[in-house]
Amino acid sequence: MSPSDRGVVVGVDIGGTKVLAGVVDAAGRVSDTARRTTPGRRVRTRQVEDALVGAILESADGRPLAGVGVAAAGFVDSSGERVMFAPHLPWQGEPLRALLEDRLGCQVRLDNDANCAARAEAHHGAARGAGSALVITMGTGIGGAVLLDGRVLRGANGMAGEFGHMQVVPGGQECECGRRGCWEQYSSGNALVRNARALMAEEPSVLAEMTAGSPDRVTGPMVTSAAEQGDLVARRAFGSVGDWLGIGTASLVAALDPEVVVIGGGVSAAGDRLLEPARAALQRTLVGAAHRVVPELVAARSGPQAGMIGAALLVTGAER
Amino acid sequence: MSPSDRGVVVGVDIGGTKVLAGVVDAAGRVSDTARRTTPGRRVRTRQVEDALVGAILESADGRPLAGVGVAAAGFVDSSGERVMFAPHLPWQGEPLRALLEDRLGCQVRLDNDANCAARAEAHHGAARGAGSALVITMGTGIGGAVLLDGRVLRGANGMAGEFGHMQVVPGGQECECGRRGCWEQYSSGNALVRNARALMAEEPSVLAEMTAGSPDRVTGPMVTSAAEQGDLVARRAFGSVGDWLGIGTASLVAALDPEVVVIGGGVSAAGDRLLEPARAALQRTLVGAAHRVVPELVAARSGPQAGMIGAALLVTGAER
Repeated sequence: MSPSDRGVVVGVDIGGTKVLAGVVDAAGRVSDTARRTTPGRRVRTRQVEDALVGAILESADGRPLAGVGVAAAGFVDSSGERVMFAPHLPWQGEPLRALLEDRLGCQVRLDNDANCAARAEAHHGAARGAGSALVITMGTGIGGAVLLDGRVLRGANGMAGEFGHMQVVPGGQECECGRRGCWEQYSSGNALVRNARALMAEEPSVLAEMTAGSPDRVTGPMVTSAAEQGDLVARRAFGSVGDWLGIGTASLVAALDPEVVVIGGGVSAAGDRLLEPARAALQRTLVGAAHRVVPELVAARSGPQAGMIGAALLVTGAER
Repeated sequence: MSPSDRGVVVGVDIGGTKVLAGVVDAAGRVSDTARRTTPGRRVRTRQVEDALVGAILESADGRPLAGVGVAAAGFVDSSGERVMFAPHLPWQGEPLRALLEDRLGCQVRLDNDANCAARAEAHHGAARGAGSALVITMGTGIGGAVLLDGRVLRGANGMAGEFGHMQVVPGGQECECGRRGCWEQYSSGNALVRNARALMAEEPSVLAEMTAGSPDRVTGPMVTSAAEQGDLVARRAFGSVGDWLGIGTASLVAALDPEVVVIGGGVSAAGDRLLEPARAALQRTLVGAAHRVVPELVAARSGPQAGMIGAALLVTGAER
């Protein structure tokens, strides 16, 4: 008997700004979504659980729950019991899985959001059928996962995939992690916005009109929109982020030799504007590129629902 | 019936300068070694095979061969049939495995030398029992392997583990691979010698006496010996190589979260002189080091025989 015979499976994705829940079927299709605002970091953990439970129950809409998968933007311990630390959430070692099982009365599974997104790509997306894949998730920063035979490599402490904090520039840009020169300072949503702000000071751009001349108001989606309108400042901002994406990817490919590289996360919505410079940089920077198979660098397919879909897979057959 | 019941197993390691063969028993102990000089890159491939066969037969000393494992300093295809390319050897896609089977009349197995060294550490050395390990081999350059449950991660094309060509300094030092800023330009035997040469120009050193004042004559073993004598130039050269070893290791640990990091290869003979600054840099550079388990960074145990031992494991039970 599959879980769906006993009720619906809900996947829920909790990030720094929002909670997204949805019923996910065996083919990875999402329906009946529900949304909450993430209560923030300075609240009691009970409030965050309330937001999760509220979104899950709204999504299930009275149907019995066969199981719930949770994708959390934070460090999840290797047994999938606790969120050890989350930059935008109040959890510090909270036994979230057991707490939610008690409240929901069904099985609950928990993993890091980037791992879940990668799992969605492995089962239903761009990494399907690949023996090995690198999934690089570009949002505010860079997250990701290594997939081997469709399984997420979790690491000895469940902390593998922190690609964004590989050092790429000695003494470089300061990072929120307290170090300098981390990859995500050069290739991420934050880097895109910083690039655009810096370039706006040097030449005319529709971004100046969009923000009434206040570079502080620039957002990632504004840069994407400006680039679509042909704005050169926005296009250059993407060019640099894409170039650095390829450079960091080349280091990971040299180390791991994956069959395919999948780029997901919000920034990847820009498609070839991001991926073309990344492919060029990968070809230029990868050792022995002329004598080897250079892996394809492709866009993720699951979009903003990847976390939910991958979370549901924790219940329905996490690892193929 | 194990292979040893049917004769001896020989492991042979072919590098840029020498061919080392030895009989390896089930416990990974080496006896009856034989040595040849590598004929070099500009000879016919038959001459290199002759050197291999000569060393193997001398090592077997008339006993029947149960099997031969070959560790080659070059890119071996993922099926273990061919050496696709080797910087210091004439092979270009040579079907070495089959050629040697024909000449020796026994089973032959082939893999890259860094993979073999890692396998030796997994079975008989510092990575024994570890669920995951990173083996970093510091010789002229940097090679290595990722071990998962004692097995070498070979990659989609058998090319995983090229850690030395991860870019760590944009536009940095030129590398033999044709790119710039590769990790092995800052942390390797070559980097050690270059550091020492540069520092000799600035301050007094016993290296000046050892080389009669000719920095060109400095070799890696000289720097090791000078450091042991307390020479500050040599010690600083090690300090920098060790620091960079830790920085690059931190990036790999962020990505892979291994249980242990094993440092092998010729340079690792310096022990804590290399490993202490590396440990400090790993602790300083690894994201979230204060909130996570930082893997131990330890010296390899198999020494210069690691290639031979790991090659023999290809025959006797390559993957545990």
